[in-house]
Amino acid sequence: MASTPSVTTPLLSPPTQPPVVDLTIDNITRKVVQASSQSGDARLDYLMERLVTHVHDFARETRLSTREWMAAIHFLTQTGQMCSPVRQEFILLSDVFGLSMLVDSIDHPKPPDCTQGSVLGPFHTNDAPHLPIGSSMTTDAAGEPMLALCTVCDSSGRPLSGVKVDIWEADSSGHYDVQYAGRQAPSERCVMTSDVDGGFWFKAIRPVSYPVPDDGPVGRLLELLKRHSHRPAHMHFIFEKQGLDRLVTTLFIRGDQYETSDVVFGVKSNLVVDLERVDEKTAAEYGVLEGTLLLRHKFILASARETEELRDRNAMEAMGRLGLKTKLMDHLPVPDLD
Amino acid sequence: MASTPSVTTPLLSPPTQPPVVDLTIDNITRKVVQASSQSGDARLDYLMERLVTHVHDFARETRLSTREWMAAIHFLTQTGQMCSPVRQEFILLSDVFGLSMLVDSIDHPKPPDCTQGSVLGPFHTNDAPHLPIGSSMTTDAAGEPMLALCTVCDSSGRPLSGVKVDIWEADSSGHYDVQYAGRQAPSERCVMTSDVDGGFWFKAIRPVSYPVPDDGPVGRLLELLKRHSHRPAHMHFIFEKQGLDRLVTTLFIRGDQYETSDVVFGVKSNLVVDLERVDEKTAAEYGVLEGTLLLRHKFILASARETEELRDRNAMEAMGRLGLKTKLMDHLPVPDLD
Repeated sequence: MASTPSVTTPLLSPPTQPPVVDLTIDNITRKVVQASSQSGDARLDYLMERLVTHVHDFARETRLSTREWMAAIHFLTQTGQMCSPVRQEFILLSDVFGLSMLVDSIDHPKPPDCTQGSVLGPFHTNDAPHLPIGSSMTTDAAGEPMLALCTVCDSSGRPLSGVKVDIWEADSSGHYDVQYAGRQAPSERCVMTSDVDGGFWFKAIRPVSYPVPDDGPVGRLLELLKRHSHRPAHMHFIFEKQGLDRLVTTLFIRGDQYETSDVVFGVKSNLVVDLERVDEKTAAEYGVLEGTLLLRHKFILASARETEELRDRNAMEAMGRLGLKTKLMDHLPVPDLD
Repeated sequence: MASTPSVTTPLLSPPTQPPVVDLTIDNITRKVVQASSQSGDARLDYLMERLVTHVHDFARETRLSTREWMAAIHFLTQTGQMCSPVRQEFILLSDVFGLSMLVDSIDHPKPPDCTQGSVLGPFHTNDAPHLPIGSSMTTDAAGEPMLALCTVCDSSGRPLSGVKVDIWEADSSGHYDVQYAGRQAPSERCVMTSDVDGGFWFKAIRPVSYPVPDDGPVGRLLELLKRHSHRPAHMHFIFEKQGLDRLVTTLFIRGDQYETSDVVFGVKSNLVVDLERVDEKTAAEYGVLEGTLLLRHKFILASARETEELRDRNAMEAMGRLGLKTKLMDHLPVPDLD
């Protein structure tokens, strides 16, 4: 595997490939892997070797029928064709099979006590307005007003100023702004920057549970699998600053009926929060009515270096456990051929 | 796995799922499989169990990064969006990774001496004209004329009459009719029915090698992998008749420069044919010029029953070798829970 073709060999000419004739159920995987792992990029070759092996093993272990294969072709085609600038059905597919959570866990492991990550989901946009601290990010008069008082610090508890915080949630009907055909401007989303004390606060509405878009191929699959399509009430956050590991996470409101059955497997205990009510003093301080819902949370962020070290260590340990002889190249495993 | 939910449980209600909170790299697969294998359809549950396991194992064994995952999301989306009524990029993807050949080998195993199968490819259409035996299926004046004299028989050598034969090939420039934007009518394709002696013959052109459509995501992937995108010169056939196993196959012209490196891994030795030249007698008999290229071939077809028995036997043997405790349901493996 992964032998580097001579640079004097013209690219794409037939002789660079070992002969592939008379392939059988038993030898086809080795031959396809040989043909597909000569790019000279050790990481790409390793990804292809693992991909072809798993796809073929799946077909062999299920004795996949032509009819089932064709159903899969149609499903993937429809999934791609459901995607648009405001809808990403393949991310949704990845989410409902737990792949998105798994990849986040692998790529962004958290040191103890740091805020856990969760799924990005398909509704983040890049056009949210940058609002000053204390702003309202809601235009939904039907939503239940909620004040959010948050801080962000590093793993030693030091406040982090100047962190870019991306915040978004569904409206009171359980839809994101991008799900409306007539969307004129961003709503129920904003970007803020933490202050010198690591603080940021904003006005929003109480998150509600909602179904993921279930009128497409992924929704039909969930129905076939007799799985519900709901996410428990939640609010999304992304934290970014030079030197920090980018944190994509979600806070969940405790007590939601879907809290233990999130369709995208995103719930972690330390991301589930209790809502409080604003007292008289806080009401006066932040200019909201007494009794308003209050979300308080402290986010604890790992540095890029902490995450990188943890990821590298986890990777080498896991490769060892799996019995795979690999080394890290740019922090990602490739076969160790020495 | 595969426990059937009580029929009195309302569908899609949260309690039908085991709780999923605090999933980690190590427990997420078991939890997602549990949630995704309660459809009550044992085959679907088994497919999902194997699919989730392989997809997750791929991510764990490669320590898939968020950036790589996102590249895969984009790739799949582009592949879906490249599909149209006349182009199937996902079939092409399956073809270039040998999955199409593997599935055909599993689902349509051939008894000894029967004609082997090969890939369907993305260019079959359902609008080919039904032509009488002896017709020409070409409108390509630039192609080198070729006479094809074929017979079809069963595995005991008995001629098979009334077999529907679907035939298609690329034109002399290496393009199928559907690849032309202005396609008015089918060309270089037809459907014939074998006569009482199992014979069918037609006029066509010499097949040429050509690249698969490489201006899309699959073509870009092949380029990254430093694989050429060519198929050796060939002609496609599908044979269908009640009681016979549907045969999807291809004849390859010996001596092509891509004969041992077909980009879709479709070449089998007993599908590679030598072209002859028409002699004086044959020329007179079939109304072509002496010296015209001649393709002669005898196709030997398995019965539906022969294929089914062989498939079942292969499946049970393979499951045994893999150590999977399965039984066959409608000729497809499902877990044997007894």
